[in-house]
Amino acid sequence: MSAIKVGVVGATGYAGSEICRIILGHPQAKLAAISSVSFEGMALSQVYPAYYRLCDMVCGTQEEVVEKSDVIFAALPHGLSQDLAARCWEQGKTFIDMGADFRLREEDEYQEWYGGTYTHKELHEEAVYGLPELFREEIKGKKLIANPGCYTTAVPLALAPALKQGLLETGGIIADCKSGVTGAGRKPTQQNHYPELNESFTAYKVANHRHTPEIEQTLSRLSGEGIKVTFVPHLLPINRGILATCYARLKPGVTEEQLWEAYRTFYENEPFVRLLPKGQVANVKNVRYSNFCDVSLFIDPRTGTFVAISAIDNMGKGAAGQAVQNMNLSFGLEETAGLMLVPPAF
Amino acid sequence: MSAIKVGVVGATGYAGSEICRIILGHPQAKLAAISSVSFEGMALSQVYPAYYRLCDMVCGTQEEVVEKSDVIFAALPHGLSQDLAARCWEQGKTFIDMGADFRLREEDEYQEWYGGTYTHKELHEEAVYGLPELFREEIKGKKLIANPGCYTTAVPLALAPALKQGLLETGGIIADCKSGVTGAGRKPTQQNHYPELNESFTAYKVANHRHTPEIEQTLSRLSGEGIKVTFVPHLLPINRGILATCYARLKPGVTEEQLWEAYRTFYENEPFVRLLPKGQVANVKNVRYSNFCDVSLFIDPRTGTFVAISAIDNMGKGAAGQAVQNMNLSFGLEETAGLMLVPPAF
Amino acid sequence: MSAIKVGVVGATGYAGSEICRIILGHPQAKLAAISSVSFEGMALSQVYPAYYRLCDMVCGTQEEVVEKSDVIFAALPHGLSQDLAARCWEQGKTFIDMGADFRLREEDEYQEWYGGTYTHKELHEEAVYGLPELFREEIKGKKLIANPGCYTTAVPLALAPALKQGLLETGGIIADCKSGVTGAGRKPTQQNHYPELNESFTAYKVANHRHTPEIEQTLSRLSGEGIKVTFVPHLLPINRGILATCYARLKPGVTEEQLWEAYRTFYENEPFVRLLPKGQVANVKNVRYSNFCDVSLFIDPRTGTFVAISAIDNMGKGAAGQAVQNMNLSFGLEETAGLMLVPPAF
Amino acid sequence: MSAIKVGVVGATGYAGSEICRIILGHPQAKLAAISSVSFEGMALSQVYPAYYRLCDMVCGTQEEVVEKSDVIFAALPHGLSQDLAARCWEQGKTFIDMGADFRLREEDEYQEWYGGTYTHKELHEEAVYGLPELFREEIKGKKLIANPGCYTTAVPLALAPALKQGLLETGGIIADCKSGVTGAGRKPTQQNHYPELNESFTAYKVANHRHTPEIEQTLSRLSGEGIKVTFVPHLLPINRGILATCYARLKPGVTEEQLWEAYRTFYENEPFVRLLPKGQVANVKNVRYSNFCDVSLFIDPRTGTFVAISAIDNMGKGAAGQAVQNMNLSFGLEETAGLMLVPPAF
Repeated sequence: MSAIKVGVVGATGYAGSEICRIILGHPQAKLAAISSVSFEGMALSQVYPAYYRLCDMVCGTQEEVVEKSDVIFAALPHGLSQDLAARCWEQGKTFIDMGADFRLREEDEYQEWYGGTYTHKELHEEAVYGLPELFREEIKGKKLIANPGCYTTAVPLALAPALKQGLLETGGIIADCKSGVTGAGRKPTQQNHYPELNESFTAYKVANHRHTPEIEQTLSRLSGEGIKVTFVPHLLPINRGILATCYARLKPGVTEEQLWEAYRTFYENEPFVRLLPKGQVANVKNVRYSNFCDVSLFIDPRTGTFVAISAIDNMGKGAAGQAVQNMNLSFGLEETAGLMLVPPAF
Repeated sequence: MSAIKVGVVGATGYAGSEICRIILGHPQAKLAAISSVSFEGMALSQVYPAYYRLCDMVCGTQEEVVEKSDVIFAALPHGLSQDLAARCWEQGKTFIDMGADFRLREEDEYQEWYGGTYTHKELHEEAVYGLPELFREEIKGKKLIANPGCYTTAVPLALAPALKQGLLETGGIIADCKSGVTGAGRKPTQQNHYPELNESFTAYKVANHRHTPEIEQTLSRLSGEGIKVTFVPHLLPINRGILATCYARLKPGVTEEQLWEAYRTFYENEPFVRLLPKGQVANVKNVRYSNFCDVSLFIDPRTGTFVAISAIDNMGKGAAGQAVQNMNLSFGLEETAGLMLVPPAF
Repeated sequence: MSAIKVGVVGATGYAGSEICRIILGHPQAKLAAISSVSFEGMALSQVYPAYYRLCDMVCGTQEEVVEKSDVIFAALPHGLSQDLAARCWEQGKTFIDMGADFRLREEDEYQEWYGGTYTHKELHEEAVYGLPELFREEIKGKKLIANPGCYTTAVPLALAPALKQGLLETGGIIADCKSGVTGAGRKPTQQNHYPELNESFTAYKVANHRHTPEIEQTLSRLSGEGIKVTFVPHLLPINRGILATCYARLKPGVTEEQLWEAYRTFYENEPFVRLLPKGQVANVKNVRYSNFCDVSLFIDPRTGTFVAISAIDNMGKGAAGQAVQNMNLSFGLEETAGLMLVPPAF
Repeated sequence: MSAIKVGVVGATGYAGSEICRIILGHPQAKLAAISSVSFEGMALSQVYPAYYRLCDMVCGTQEEVVEKSDVIFAALPHGLSQDLAARCWEQGKTFIDMGADFRLREEDEYQEWYGGTYTHKELHEEAVYGLPELFREEIKGKKLIANPGCYTTAVPLALAPALKQGLLETGGIIADCKSGVTGAGRKPTQQNHYPELNESFTAYKVANHRHTPEIEQTLSRLSGEGIKVTFVPHLLPINRGILATCYARLKPGVTEEQLWEAYRTFYENEPFVRLLPKGQVANVKNVRYSNFCDVSLFIDPRTGTFVAISAIDNMGKGAAGQAVQNMNLSFGLEETAGLMLVPPAF
């Protein structure tokens, strides 16, 4: 089989450039075209000198990307993906959306949290939600995939086995999450100006972040009940990584062994989820530059609270890595192709 | 009045050295003697070159410190403060303990969490808990003061007004805390070796940290009910600061305005607690190198959850600053003397 | 004497806000008025929440600042200080310029490196260069003071005693400098965006930085010869501090003891220069948040090279601290007033 | 050809663990055995949880490593490699030494700087110095390779083409180098304790570092003259990377174009050296987690000084990456095998 031709729209953003980097090392795919509105006509390596001589491809237009590629990854501002997806759909090309346009099933939730509308309702019927560990079968062979957000990958993977097995009370779930700053994108802001973020730590969009309905949608699908979560994101002065510390009350009578058994069973064949040995805590450091999600479990016997802590690289499993995992599933490749890089120890 | 003579036992640890720094700028106190087991005979400025020519005092013995000082701050490993406190008590000197030996009222809790015993039970009757914003009247003029831990300052200050007014359910309280690394002390460890902590983030002692009973003791005193909390500390790759994100369920019918009113009233005359304007979130950056505690309030109307977020400098209000505040109260000085330093903007 | 009324033009920049912070703790000065073009009408504490309740003064106009103040600190873009200085001069007010407009004696150098002209030539005759350790007597009582740049403080203080004593070859001097990022100002840029600066290190404006002629002017005044230096600045991923590693060839026959003696004599009565004991190296950490300059000396006997390493806080001795030191000299106050803060140990 | 069996002695140190990580992704080599004195009997992934499920190999003894491997990488304290090298030599196995035992040609220099002796003089005759860009032909097929140190890779690669062409004065060369902290190893120390290194920057071993004679040996071989350099290393508060800022005087009449031409010619076919376009400065960020060396050139026309700035990952091209490159040369593989990983953009 000839290599899959990969196109990236919005290649100079953090997610887009990371997809390019992964594809450069992918054994069955090759970068065919990239685009960028801000840097059209410039080489990717002029924007990111780390890529010098390794990826000097020049940024063209969206149209060129669609034309030259079998699969198009789109890292666009919210609202702009739908038209592009439609064009790809018409031409029979696979479209993997890094944004939120196709993530929420209910249009009114999209309207409430993102302020937009569903301009191609028929496409929303076709779109699948690309969280492979939870919805793998739906993704295989599909041509329109909504890649989840970063928090919305970390929180469900921390809680899925317990919710699926009905071991937790579904009310009162809390997700206290901490993200590295690449999640906020490449555009310089006052908040992420080095002197202001360095040696700082705070929360933002407290109980008010757009990923809330997406997390709830996934948790509700898992449990079969309507779940609301209190979600508080924090900003870490590090580049990469999300740590999700999730709290839920155990249902009466649930034992620690039941919990561990549920997780072991659920994740035993997953290549990218590493259930850590008892006593060890997930650390963002251990998954950096990789597609792994580390999961660790604790119980507070004094209060009957379950604490699940997961770690991902927000740019890996939380964005570009997972997108390539979805590409692999869509094209029937080995799911781990190009993604088994060992996270550096330091 | 002549300047209060201050002694610091364990002056070369982080808390001890910070007490020295504050005292050097205190208008009514002067550093009289310091001691260190590890660095006896060396100048403090040899251990911390930042102090060169500003505090070249040489480390002597505990005995010298007691003899030369009106007030002794003791930054000792847990268990070692009791004998020293007894000696100070006999000589009529004020003793401010930075460790845990006098913090817990119940000896069995001390035994459970610290593995030690109360060797001078009569002293434990005399000791007061030095969290001035909550127990100011008890501290004034006292000669044996247990300075609270860092987490145990941040969490109660975040929740006190609401608990005192009975606005919160007392079950299910969660304190998700994040601390800078100076809280772990000066001794090099693998975990805090620069290459391993840098760009990392994780939790530790999940639902199992020694500050748990101390937090519960304070919250229970405030509410009049026995309160259990789920307390999960995390380690931030920054030097200073604790952010405490505290979650509790609102009692039925409690309004947002009631909460704000409770906090405004409770803290309106406090010099060191800054209740932030609505919408602004506490950030460890804004209290660094100071004795301030910033408090911010949020409600998740979708789940009825109250989120109180406080920020302190773990070495300031969480240790040395609060200890000097207690000294001021003990000696009848202006409570803010030596402590009104403006936190740097960057 | 009543307190000196201090005004700060450009108070919301990093240097301006740091001047405000120092003045808030100054025993003989008080903040009278501040201005900001970008934030007119906003409180300084809205821009820097660290100052909340400690400096809630509202930013007004330049005119208000001049009117209400005895001394005006101006932190303005290059070229804009001259008119303001003229207005202050007419009204008999002291003007301390944080920018470059009055630093260079030769207008053609100003034109070459900054691209501007001297619009008030008579004022340039009046201006003194405010590096107190080298030109103290000129500064006392003066009303128009050019505050040096950060690199231009660190490099001359490292080399002054040896050059003054004629111990070094004046050709081939190299200043390899490394600065914290606050030196680049508050405005967000791609280069100083957290994810891009974090874990990075590079040089910039190699042998081409605007501080070059200013360094040369000072070194030439010290030595009495025209000196050219190769100056290469680097950007450190830290907030504060400059380390200047300066290389020069020893004149034939110069001994190590002569060098040490020259430095000891030159700096023995300087309150803010700390000549470090032999073997100890200056570290930016030890001068943070202070007005100190640490100086350390080394000789490479294998090559006959002298290595002088100095450290300052680029926002302290490199900007705001030195500016207040100049104010003290101008007004006949104790030179150290408001400036003897002990650098934190961590 | 079956995969080369790789053994790593001292696998739990930073260099050793990084070799393991590279080998895990090498298409023609596989990890056969690892050893560690400190962690014998433990899995590498227990020491570095980043490797969990990816490299759970258990640390055995040196003997086991030698027995099971075709090539042995030894990351041992100075002085301990010689005996091990002798054992490998006897058994016909390739030995790549990460330490200094075989780097210096002159035993008296080894004695002066390392305090040891050459216990197997005949082996020192066989050893080649593994800096492929400079000595490639010597390395091919050899079985005893001294892998250069980190500074001793960065400085020669910055200066080689100009020295080789005789464009520089050989006296007065200065190498002002800045290294990330992983270069100091995994063992916790006070200096590298997070709170003390964070936000700090200083020099160390000024004009007195052990890499000095090794740098001089290489530069002298290149130029054919005995060269002495003033070498001052600094410690950066980042994990990975060395920036070498090298200063030398141009020989009379040498033009900028001659310099560029010399570098272009010298490096045009080098896969791992990236000569940057004029005006761009090498940055450690752009080579992290890779085997690349970026080189940038500048001239200070005002002083006739040449400034060459190179950047490497001290653990990549400065240690583990270069060691694998040497393995590839020794075994006749493609020199880039396993090493063409794209450095991450952030």
